[in-house]
Order: sequence, then structure tokens, then C-alpha cells
Amino acid sequence: MATDPLPLAQALIRCRSVTPADDGAMAMLEAALAPLGFACRRLRFGEVENLFARRGAGGPHLCFAGHTDVVPPGDAGAWTADPFGGEVRAGLLYGRGATDMKGAIAAFVAAVADRLAARPEAPGSLSLLITGDEEGPAVDGTARVLEWMAAHGQVPDMCLVGEPTSRARLGDVIKIGRRGSLNAAITLHGVQGHVAYPQRADNPVHRLLRVLHGLIARPLDQGTEWFEPSSLQVTSVDVGNAATNVIPAAARARLNIRFNDRHTGESLARMLRAALEAEGARFDLEVSVSGEAFLTRPGPFVEALKRAVRRATGEEPVLDTGGGTSDARFIARYCPVAELGAVGTTMHKADECTPVAELRALAALYRAVIEEALG
Amino acid sequence: MATDPLPLAQALIRCRSVTPADDGAMAMLEAALAPLGFACRRLRFGEVENLFARRGAGGPHLCFAGHTDVVPPGDAGAWTADPFGGEVRAGLLYGRGATDMKGAIAAFVAAVADRLAARPEAPGSLSLLITGDEEGPAVDGTARVLEWMAAHGQVPDMCLVGEPTSRARLGDVIKIGRRGSLNAAITLHGVQGHVAYPQRADNPVHRLLRVLHGLIARPLDQGTEWFEPSSLQVTSVDVGNAATNVIPAAARARLNIRFNDRHTGESLARMLRAALEAEGARFDLEVSVSGEAFLTRPGPFVEALKRAVRRATGEEPVLDTGGGTSDARFIARYCPVAELGAVGTTMHKADECTPVAELRALAALYRAVIEEALG
Ligand SMILES: [Zn+2]
Ligand SMILES: [Zn+2]
Repeated sequence: MATDPLPLAQALIRCRSVTPADDGAMAMLEAALAPLGFACRRLRFGEVENLFARRGAGGPHLCFAGHTDVVPPGDAGAWTADPFGGEVRAGLLYGRGATDMKGAIAAFVAAVADRLAARPEAPGSLSLLITGDEEGPAVDGTARVLEWMAAHGQVPDMCLVGEPTSRARLGDVIKIGRRGSLNAAITLHGVQGHVAYPQRADNPVHRLLRVLHGLIARPLDQGTEWFEPSSLQVTSVDVGNAATNVIPAAARARLNIRFNDRHTGESLARMLRAALEAEGARFDLEVSVSGEAFLTRPGPFVEALKRAVRRATGEEPVLDTGGGTSDARFIARYCPVAELGAVGTTMHKADECTPVAELRALAALYRAVIEEALG
Repeated sequence: MATDPLPLAQALIRCRSVTPADDGAMAMLEAALAPLGFACRRLRFGEVENLFARRGAGGPHLCFAGHTDVVPPGDAGAWTADPFGGEVRAGLLYGRGATDMKGAIAAFVAAVADRLAARPEAPGSLSLLITGDEEGPAVDGTARVLEWMAAHGQVPDMCLVGEPTSRARLGDVIKIGRRGSLNAAITLHGVQGHVAYPQRADNPVHRLLRVLHGLIARPLDQGTEWFEPSSLQVTSVDVGNAATNVIPAAARARLNIRFNDRHTGESLARMLRAALEAEGARFDLEVSVSGEAFLTRPGPFVEALKRAVRRATGEEPVLDTGGGTSDARFIARYCPVAELGAVGTTMHKADECTPVAELRALAALYRAVIEEALG
């Protein structure tokens, strides 16, 4: 690699771009991309800065998706480095975003620069879809940019998301899907009364216990070839009845479901509603789906990523669908998408850092990805 | 009946004896009993006034047990009469304690006066065990007086509690037992974690749901000849976890058990502990038994009460063990005890009242009870 990703990574870390703040991060990135021949288009939705940058018009079109926003540094006293300093100490680059994922953006830009320097006439086109709202509500970010891209004929043929997917060594894990996530709030209504006369009351706590026990008693599924079994966790039950001799009028619960591609938010909402209706009591059910499950079935793009990993790192990558949600869930509606990035052990923690050598190895890996994907 | 219970009932209602206040109620009662030849002994325990009054030394010894304390009037605006006025309007005596149970005390005193006037040499001896702490914690009341009575050779042969047991017509129900009551507070400890990685956490809500569902899934018993089935009511479940993506560290529940004489507080505490131990998680269990179940099996005393009811009212009384706890649970340890009193529909409510005619009928009923019990 002739191009070093470190300076751009440091420059980006020095922008205090805690969601939804940008603090010059997008401009910094534009300044790096424009000289490489990228047409940069700033897309502001609500209070969120987004950037779509593309170089070349021909196919195949590989898009790199990522985010310049970061989570807050948290307890400043827990850091030994300035979270926004971009300091390198003992071979480690410190700072919020070092792994998640300003380092990956810099690595991709370096990979592109490297490819253009070595092969100015290489085929295909490259783009970057960068949002400032991945760690936040994710409403005015990637999803909106994708709508804009679709409206303007810019849907890519494949997309690489630079999230820190590696577990122990760079390239050991490629994420080809993510589970969906659904939150539900249940209120079950009964009839208040005295505990001495339960037949004159209708205990909503008992009804809720039956419903919830039914929900946790059997697994939602047994998992699939690519996904572990879906998981339902009751996170809170709240009645708030201080009187020991009173049957309360209502009982509340909240639960979260992490689900694989055998379900949708809608099918699970129907299942919850049916379980409540079977109990036969009056209830309120609020469901919010924060992300649908998605899967990019192994095919040419995933095979290209695997070859790139083997070639650049010597690792045999595991295809994985675990963990939380990411913006890849939006992209999956448009084209094959997979996630491959740094070792994420320090992400969202104090002293987030990445070895400089690993950052450079990530740039080389991304260079290999581009070669394998575009030729 | 030559003696009218109304004046004493009014005088007692005019004492503002909301637990643990006495406001002259005991002195009023002593003033009525002393002229009838009762030896009155005031027994103050803690802040509670109690009275033991006895007339005669021979057997059989019938004790009347009751309380001069009352529950607070509650919302004054909901009353059409002064709760402490003792007003008679359209044949109804209004006031807190009219049915529960200053009226019954006055009725018993009138019954005694009537018997003494008619049959000065009638056999047996009579006593009154009156507490000012039945509606409160019931610690320094009837239980302590009974200890004193036992220590002083004053344990009666049978005891009538003047609680308002009648359901629709005077004398239609005699209570020969009461269910016990137990409160339990459970805290179940797990391991906190992120909902996306339940295998790294240990959800205490799920463990608590399993334990509670097991407790409510099968009845504690099928009831007995004299008791309805015991009832377990979960009155509150509280986790208080506001984060939708976090599995909490602990979950709490509270429950109440109303139990018949197939259980004791101790046997139920053991059952709860075993259910928690079977779940295999760390837990805290706090159990407090506010009253053991008791039963006075039908025998000579209950038969005497039934004859008295039939003779005085024409009712065929039902023997019942339902409802909340009463001080009879303490007395049951010493002698046969049953409860018989006014129609209780207005007890503890606004505009508590009793028809004056019914108050007088209660005095006649008590007169018949004394005759049947002592001869
Ligand atoms: Zn990220
Ligand atoms: Zn009472």
C-alpha cells in the first residue's frame, strides 16, 4: 500500500461528530475524495449531514457505506487519551471512531487512492454512502440517502459496509446479515379488587403472567442455516401496586425480540396480538420495529469478499449474522450487502483504539475487496 | 327487650376513636358495665387501650370480644351525616362504627342488662374483651389481652366476636373460621446484559415468570368441608427497567395467599422457598404471616349460636369461613370462637349506618345467645 490511511483517520477523529453533530467531518472527507475524482453530493435531511460520492459511471458499481458520527465519549476520566485527539501512542491510534468507523472510512479512501495510482484505467465505478446518523435514530441517514440514490439512478450493484465486524483478527468475520429487532409494550387491563375476594376481581397480573410465560415457554424457531434462533426477552414487568391487599387494575410489560429471516416485524406483531387475544382480556399493544432481519445469501459478492480476505490477511472468514442492527438493513433492500471491518473490541468503550498496523492492513484488505469485486 | 342499645351505641360513635385513638370510648363502656356488676380492668399495651371486664366467677364463661376503634371516615364529602355524630335519621343510626362494631358492643351490653334484669340469678359468667386496635396492626390488642387473661386464669369457655357477619338479614351468617393471610416479597437475581446477547446474560424476569406461573397454574387445594379453596394472588411485579435493549439484573414480585386450614404460614413459606429453589437462581424471599387460618368445628357452642339465631330471628344461619381476617384468629388458640353480628354492607364505607330496629334485634339475638350458651 502506497497510501497511508492514518492521516485521514486522525483528521476525522479530531472532528467532534457525536450524533448528529458533523463538526467538519463531511468536509474533511470531501476534501480527500475530490482530488481522487469523486463527484461529491452533500445530502442534508433534517439536522443530519450525509454524503454520496461517486467516481466513474460504468458497471459494476461497488458502494462503500459508513458513518462519520460517533457515540459520546462517556466518562472522560476513563480515557487515557483525548477521545477527539487522534493520538498515536505505542503503535495504537486512540479516539472515538478509531474502530467504529472513521478508521474504516480512511482505510477505504486509501484503498481507492492506491488502486487509482496503480491502475488508473481499472474497470467499474466506486461510490461512498456516508451518513452522520448511524448511531442515532437512523431516520434521516442511510435510508434517506438510498431513496435519493434510487431516484437518481445511483443504486449500486453491491455494497460493503465498513462496520467493525472482525472478532479477534482482521478479516476473521464477514457479516452477511443481521437479525431484526422489535420492541413491544403491553398493558393488560383487569378489574381491581380486594385479595380476599379474587372472584369479584380479575387479576391482570395473572393474565399477563400467562401470556408472557406462553411467549417464553417455546422458542420462536430453531434457527436457520445462517441465523441462530430468534430470541424473545421480557425486559420489564411493572405493576407498581404498593398495597399488599389489593388486586391491581392493570399490569404492564415490555419485551424485545431479535429475530431471524423466518419472521418479519409484522408477523411477530401478529403473533403477539394473537397471544393477547387468546387470553381474552382487554389489552393495549404497542409494537415498534427498529429493524427487519436481512440476509445476503452467499453468492458472487460474498465470494469476492472471502477471496479478498484470504488474499490480504490469510484468514478464512466466518460468515456471521449475529450482533445488533446496522444500516446494512436499509441497503439490503436495494442490492447485495455485507459488512467487513476492523476488530471491534474497543468500540463504544473508553480508550477506543486500533493498532496503526491493523488500520493499514484494513486499507490493504479493502484494496483487495475492490480488486475482487470490480476486477 | 327492656333495655335499648341505642343510647350507648350513639355515645360510643361520638368518641372519635380512629385506631389507635380511644377518645373516651373505653371509659364510656366502663361507665355502662360497672353498674351491671362488671369488674373492669383497663389494659394498656403500647399506645393501645384495652379493656377486660368480667361479671361472675363461675362456669360456663362466655366472653364477648370486640373493638371500639374504627377506620377513618375517609372522604368527609361522601357522608350525608357527621361520621361521629350518632345521628338517627329515618330510622337509621349513622356513624363510623355503627355496624363495625360499636353498635354490636352496645347490643351486647343491652343483652346482658336485659338478662340480669329478668334473671338476676342466671348461671355462668360473662366477660367482654374489648380492644382499641383491631383495625390497626393488631399487635397490642386482643392478642396481648388474651395473654394477660391466660396468665390470670380468665380464659373463657367460649367466645363470641361481634363483627358484622350478617350478609343480607341479621343472623343469616355465622363465621366459624377465617382464612389465614400471608404476604411474600420475592426478589430474583440474574445477570444483566444486552438483549442482543441473551446467552451472555441470565434474565431474572424469565425466571420470575416461570416461578410465578408455576404458583398460579395449579390451585393450592380444592377447599375443605368448611373452607373454599385457598387463593394465591400476585399483587405486583416490578422490574423498573427503562432500557428496551437491556436484560435487567433483578426482578421483584409480591403476592398474597388467603389460605384455609390445610396450610399454615410456615408450610406455605416452605412451598414458596421450594418453588424458588427449583428455579435454581439466587433469590430473596420475605414472608410475613398476618394471620393463621382457624376453624371452630361445629359443636356445642356453634349449635347454641344456631339455636339462638333461629329463636331470635327465624333465620337458618349459614356457617361460613370467608372474608378477611379478624381478631378471632387470636382467640381460636384458647377456646371455641365464632363471629355473629350486624349486616355489614356499609362497614368501612361513607354513611356507615344500621337500622335502629336491627340494632335492637341484634341485642335480642345476643340475649338469646347468652341464654343458649349459659342456660
Ligand atoms: Zn458503527
Ligand atoms: Zn370490625
